[in-house]
Amino acid sequence: MNLKFVINILGFLLLLTGLLMLSGIPFSIYYRDDDIPVLLFTGLGTALLGFIVWFFTRDNLVKEIGKREGYLVVTLGWLIMSFFGSLPFVFHGSIPNFTDAFFETVSGFTTTGASILNNIEALPHGLLFWRSMTHWIGGMGIIVLSIAILPLLGIGGMQLYQAEVAGPTKDKLHPRVQETAKRLWAIYVLFTLSETVLLIFGGMNLFDALCHSFGTLASGGFSTKNQSVAYYNSPFIEYVIIVFMFIAGTNFSLHYLALKGKIFNYFKDSEFRFYTLFIFLVVTASTLYLIIHNNQSVESSFRDTSFSIISILSSTGFATVNYESWAPFFTEIFLVLLLFGACAGSTSGGVKMVRYQLLLKNSLIELKRLIHPQAVIPVRQNNKAVHSDIIAKVGAFVLLYLFIFGIGSVILAITGLNSTSAMGAVAACLANIGPGLDATGPVTNYSSVSELGKWVLSFVMLLGRLEIFTILILFSPSFWKK
Amino acid sequence: MNLKFVINILGFLLLLTGLLMLSGIPFSIYYRDDDIPVLLFTGLGTALLGFIVWFFTRDNLVKEIGKREGYLVVTLGWLIMSFFGSLPFVFHGSIPNFTDAFFETVSGFTTTGASILNNIEALPHGLLFWRSMTHWIGGMGIIVLSIAILPLLGIGGMQLYQAEVAGPTKDKLHPRVQETAKRLWAIYVLFTLSETVLLIFGGMNLFDALCHSFGTLASGGFSTKNQSVAYYNSPFIEYVIIVFMFIAGTNFSLHYLALKGKIFNYFKDSEFRFYTLFIFLVVTASTLYLIIHNNQSVESSFRDTSFSIISILSSTGFATVNYESWAPFFTEIFLVLLLFGACAGSTSGGVKMVRYQLLLKNSLIELKRLIHPQAVIPVRQNNKAVHSDIIAKVGAFVLLYLFIFGIGSVILAITGLNSTSAMGAVAACLANIGPGLDATGPVTNYSSVSELGKWVLSFVMLLGRLEIFTILILFSPSFWKK
Repeated sequence: MNLKFVINILGFLLLLTGLLMLSGIPFSIYYRDDDIPVLLFTGLGTALLGFIVWFFTRDNLVKEIGKREGYLVVTLGWLIMSFFGSLPFVFHGSIPNFTDAFFETVSGFTTTGASILNNIEALPHGLLFWRSMTHWIGGMGIIVLSIAILPLLGIGGMQLYQAEVAGPTKDKLHPRVQETAKRLWAIYVLFTLSETVLLIFGGMNLFDALCHSFGTLASGGFSTKNQSVAYYNSPFIEYVIIVFMFIAGTNFSLHYLALKGKIFNYFKDSEFRFYTLFIFLVVTASTLYLIIHNNQSVESSFRDTSFSIISILSSTGFATVNYESWAPFFTEIFLVLLLFGACAGSTSGGVKMVRYQLLLKNSLIELKRLIHPQAVIPVRQNNKAVHSDIIAKVGAFVLLYLFIFGIGSVILAITGLNSTSAMGAVAACLANIGPGLDATGPVTNYSSVSELGKWVLSFVMLLGRLEIFTILILFSPSFWKK
Repeated sequence: MNLKFVINILGFLLLLTGLLMLSGIPFSIYYRDDDIPVLLFTGLGTALLGFIVWFFTRDNLVKEIGKREGYLVVTLGWLIMSFFGSLPFVFHGSIPNFTDAFFETVSGFTTTGASILNNIEALPHGLLFWRSMTHWIGGMGIIVLSIAILPLLGIGGMQLYQAEVAGPTKDKLHPRVQETAKRLWAIYVLFTLSETVLLIFGGMNLFDALCHSFGTLASGGFSTKNQSVAYYNSPFIEYVIIVFMFIAGTNFSLHYLALKGKIFNYFKDSEFRFYTLFIFLVVTASTLYLIIHNNQSVESSFRDTSFSIISILSSTGFATVNYESWAPFFTEIFLVLLLFGACAGSTSGGVKMVRYQLLLKNSLIELKRLIHPQAVIPVRQNNKAVHSDIIAKVGAFVLLYLFIFGIGSVILAITGLNSTSAMGAVAACLANIGPGLDATGPVTNYSSVSELGKWVLSFVMLLGRLEIFTILILFSPSFWKK
């Protein structure tokens, strides 16, 4: 194990974290807020610590990392950034309790968007900007992780995407990962800026527009307003966010190909078609319900349902309405939606469409196999046969996911939440969505969850964000052998 | 397709159903009930119809059935028996609504035990006996199905058990199935009689003892009392039922081997160990909770928890206490338990332990595979390597199971149940348990469910009982080709 390089990378990440903490200071200066010393002190301190670690591990460095180093860097990276990232909130006193601050920051870096803040608007602008910035950094990390690193590691069937962009197939993580990352980040930045411009055009100020764009593209969901996006009461803003949430839930490899002119690749991708069709069906049915039963206008029904449903599926978690109040059974519908997720290779969390799609195909093909037991009938995805090993891997992932959901729900119920709230909270944190159901639902937040519950949910957010295995593998004895 | 033989078998099953309807008449005579004419008329009518069908299809019969005929017989058999079995309730007027009567009878034959009766004790003894008898017949059917037929059909990984008792591996269902069935039924009858004797010894009359033994061994759960087993208020009776529910949840192949002297085979079986360990852990934890938090005595805590937990896991559904009142979070714990089930090859329903065990092993081994991607590390069960094809089949089953659970819950929620009740009802009916949660929980029944909801749940009971694929395959176009 090349631990030295692991520490070196972590030092670099810490340096970056520290410097980015300073990014909100211009806003604090403009709005005359009181958080400038805290951000300056914590940001520079973190950066300095990171620099020292990086500097003293930089000599004679073998810049090669294998898979095991990869797992370690990813998990420790998210953990350390969340720890240091939470310090400004504690030092400033706006989130005095460390558990709360850590929960909020893990929620940020994992692009979950679950909040314990009862009064978001009371926070100074520099801290709010940092809060949204954690989303944006997390989203960057996830894009690289899910398109360039996880396929190499072969987690949960993601090797399906191995050939698409990343290229390298050897045991070592190639320098080409860097190239891929740069391209994808360029797209990510481009989308973020486009949304920012549109939101300003729709009436937001620069600060809010940036923060909401960060929250959208990272499929995070932190807003700068207590009422989330509902605050703006602007159909235009809502439509802009709907479109960009949908984009954030799409495989970024497809965006990359589209920008190179291959715009029809979107619809050549089986997962994207499934994702689009799924949204279309659920939105249409819900819209019709709102029009007929709740006497809402066609336009506002469509806007409300598509906003809420895409927000949940893309794992963003912005809210404009309380969908649980549409009808009692929407609680159940949203519980199911909380367990889906959008496309692999996007910033969205959760199981993701492609995994369900593969398993669903496998279940249906099983019917054919039962009728023709001698025939070998493979699952096909994008016109390629998928080996049963990969189906078994995907099954292993989904089962573990649902197990963690079950165990987590029981623990959260024991800490005092009712059944619906507990399941909603765990489903929403595991899929990095944010708002759960009932007591943890879209019109409330996680402040009422117990101390233990917050730690469990923080762990669950990390598990979900890092596709479970990345973290669990560190607990496996054979990981540490040799 | 040898449709003639299919119809011939169905005729025979109908003849049997009709004759067995008469079995409760002696009790009606003894208790001077008013259901004798109805039972006599419907029983003989059904038997006559069955006889006619059987008689006129018996000439030149090719007594060979392939897999496709197997699927058809099983599904139609359960359906037809449930239809005719419900008639006495309708004709007598004790369950005037056909939907209700059909629900109650499907619930009986599928050994679910979900009831729509608000006052069970108002029913005459002959009908009550028939109601419990449907359990017993269903249980008999299930034992043969799960040990002798499903492994041959290879549904959801059940071919694992192919070699254990059944023997034949060719495409045709061999006459040896009959031999296997006879042996297993002998054990089933033996256990039923043993329990009956013990229950009489514990203070029940013959009628109640028989009915409760039918309900136990079939893992059904219909009681003759409104309060279920709580009515007797007898620790002895409760312990007897606990033991036999546990037995009913065990693979009957193991009982068969044990009676041949190989008593230690129980603990050589990996699934049985998992089943026992699982029960031990959940019962111990819950017992400690009741002792500490609810100030219950050690003995009654142990009795209440083991009764309730084994009742749910074995998919019986008898009740002695309202476990949802132990603490709010027990609702969540029991929701998880509702999704488990006991051993394959038992009369219990649900996913069953072995499937979860295989998938869980596969998920954990996946960690090793990620560390050593070149190595082939198979899942092992009972010291044998399990091929990844079978893991994929098991995954297909479990995923489909959970999908049906999800979709069913949404539909039931739309028909008016709250989220917890809807999930509880679908989980309990899909696993053939009986009592769900909250409005469909152990202290209430299914009478408040809407008409549509009852039909959906009836279908769900059949789907669960026949391991999903047996029914779904009939909707597959390729089943009917050639």
